[in-house]
Amino acid sequence: MARAITLVESRAKSHQEKADQLIQKILPRTGKAIRIGITGVPGVGKSTFIEVFGCLLCEKGKHVAVLTVDPSSARGGGSILGDKTRMEHLSRHPNAFIRPSPSGDTLGGVARKTREALLLCEAAGFDVILVETVGVGQSEIAVRNMVDFFLLMMLPGGGDELQGIKKGVVELADAVFVNKADGENRGLAEISRREYATALRYITPATRGWRTESYAGSALTGDGLPELWSLIERFYEDMGPQGFIQERRREQTLSWLKDLIRDELNTRFFGDTRVILRMPQLEESLIRGEITANTAAKELFQMLDSKI
Amino acid sequence: MARAITLVESRAKSHQEKADQLIQKILPRTGKAIRIGITGVPGVGKSTFIEVFGCLLCEKGKHVAVLTVDPSSARGGGSILGDKTRMEHLSRHPNAFIRPSPSGDTLGGVARKTREALLLCEAAGFDVILVETVGVGQSEIAVRNMVDFFLLMMLPGGGDELQGIKKGVVELADAVFVNKADGENRGLAEISRREYATALRYITPATRGWRTESYAGSALTGDGLPELWSLIERFYEDMGPQGFIQERRREQTLSWLKDLIRDELNTRFFGDTRVILRMPQLEESLIRGEITANTAAKELFQMLDSKI
Repeated sequence: MARAITLVESRAKSHQEKADQLIQKILPRTGKAIRIGITGVPGVGKSTFIEVFGCLLCEKGKHVAVLTVDPSSARGGGSILGDKTRMEHLSRHPNAFIRPSPSGDTLGGVARKTREALLLCEAAGFDVILVETVGVGQSEIAVRNMVDFFLLMMLPGGGDELQGIKKGVVELADAVFVNKADGENRGLAEISRREYATALRYITPATRGWRTESYAGSALTGDGLPELWSLIERFYEDMGPQGFIQERRREQTLSWLKDLIRDELNTRFFGDTRVILRMPQLEESLIRGEITANTAAKELFQMLDSKI
Repeated sequence: MARAITLVESRAKSHQEKADQLIQKILPRTGKAIRIGITGVPGVGKSTFIEVFGCLLCEKGKHVAVLTVDPSSARGGGSILGDKTRMEHLSRHPNAFIRPSPSGDTLGGVARKTREALLLCEAAGFDVILVETVGVGQSEIAVRNMVDFFLLMMLPGGGDELQGIKKGVVELADAVFVNKADGENRGLAEISRREYATALRYITPATRGWRTESYAGSALTGDGLPELWSLIERFYEDMGPQGFIQERRREQTLSWLKDLIRDELNTRFFGDTRVILRMPQLEESLIRGEITANTAAKELFQMLDSKI
């Protein structure tokens, strides 16, 4: 498993081709796992949550894989130790597999590798895949696009403290979980939960036919975690037969192709040496109001003077 | 003016070149107007609002231009009569100029023409440009990207009725205006206003340094409209000296170029006959799980086998 993922994560051209062939071969055995995405600002307690939630699932006999999308992670993959340390019990459980974020220059690259690792984990028989993201750049959207159920973790506390949440992230969520509802924080967490309940009334749910709601609990004490698992089971029971999950996965696969094409077009255009050299000058003229965006775009395309 | 805009809106290649030259020439005289975007679901009262708000500004001695972005508008531009009829007083005012949505197949095309019309109106000396959008597709984002201040109009009434608002639109707004706060609706509108005030606390403001808040009023009776104008004046007074408006316009200009490039790359790729013919088959194989997105993308690019 780990070696297959290493192959997928490799940047060597020859490895990439082998990885493609491998993925292609295991495709028929994929698609059976519960795919859960988890996001939240740093400090919200994602690691503790995954540690405790993962162990809970392992104890139920599930095989749990934990993947991470962090485009800012060190190139060398040095976070392995970190991930295993911060999820000490889970990493030792025989049913669990923890893989740190792949390295990569672009979110697109990191997300692609994680998506392929997810397929490998499914083919290897894992029942539940937890994909964690730290919320750098557009990584929440990348993760939302590879999972069925997306969990947003929040801290207790209202108003301004919550401004760390990026625009639109609440609208990606299938559930909002106010963590750290323990000890003195319990009351505050309940107030926050209710405020989110109000805010969620104004937002179109991320999954058609599903009602995104807010919950409070504590990864530290385990409060609310069994209920959250029941909620996710209910999500699959309610949405699965209606075909929404199949439909979402279909859309995800198609948009995956579109993303790859877009990335490749951008890489070719903006990576072209002539564009790299000319762009800053054109941008300066644009800002000075000397030329229009039309003129600039036309010049660039004429310069490249080639089809697609 | 109207003739210059017609030139800009033309699809004839020779006209487009002339239009480019014209825009280029007037660029130094642009940038002095107050640029306001207005959106809201059908029936919220955008026309009545613009009619009454526009007349109010004209009476203050302002010269007001009204532009519209509606990618669904009839190809022939047949909505001229419609726009002038629904804004009867404003269209007769000597200080006002009303231009219906340009026609076009794509939002990108429609938005580009409207943006150029906006520059022409500025060069012609209009002080206030109101850009209305009906909210089809991504048109709110297109309009947000060409204005300084973005107004979201809402109907009184809570909860589910509001679900007609698309994801993320509230997060684009510099002000939320609950319209139709007149007669029996007054109380309901105030309740809605307060609920929006709560929801807005959870959302990062669209303009850094500005606090997006909710207001209630009535385009029909004119209640709240002078206050809204004061608010917009305050927006320019507060944000202008801090450089936020300049910064936004700079970013808008640069992202305009990126949008044009993206549109052109997409047109070239997805408009290629070979891609058009092959794409549906690849998508089917993808959905059936026979190939990976990587394989499909690679095949398409190898088929086109060309740089850029």
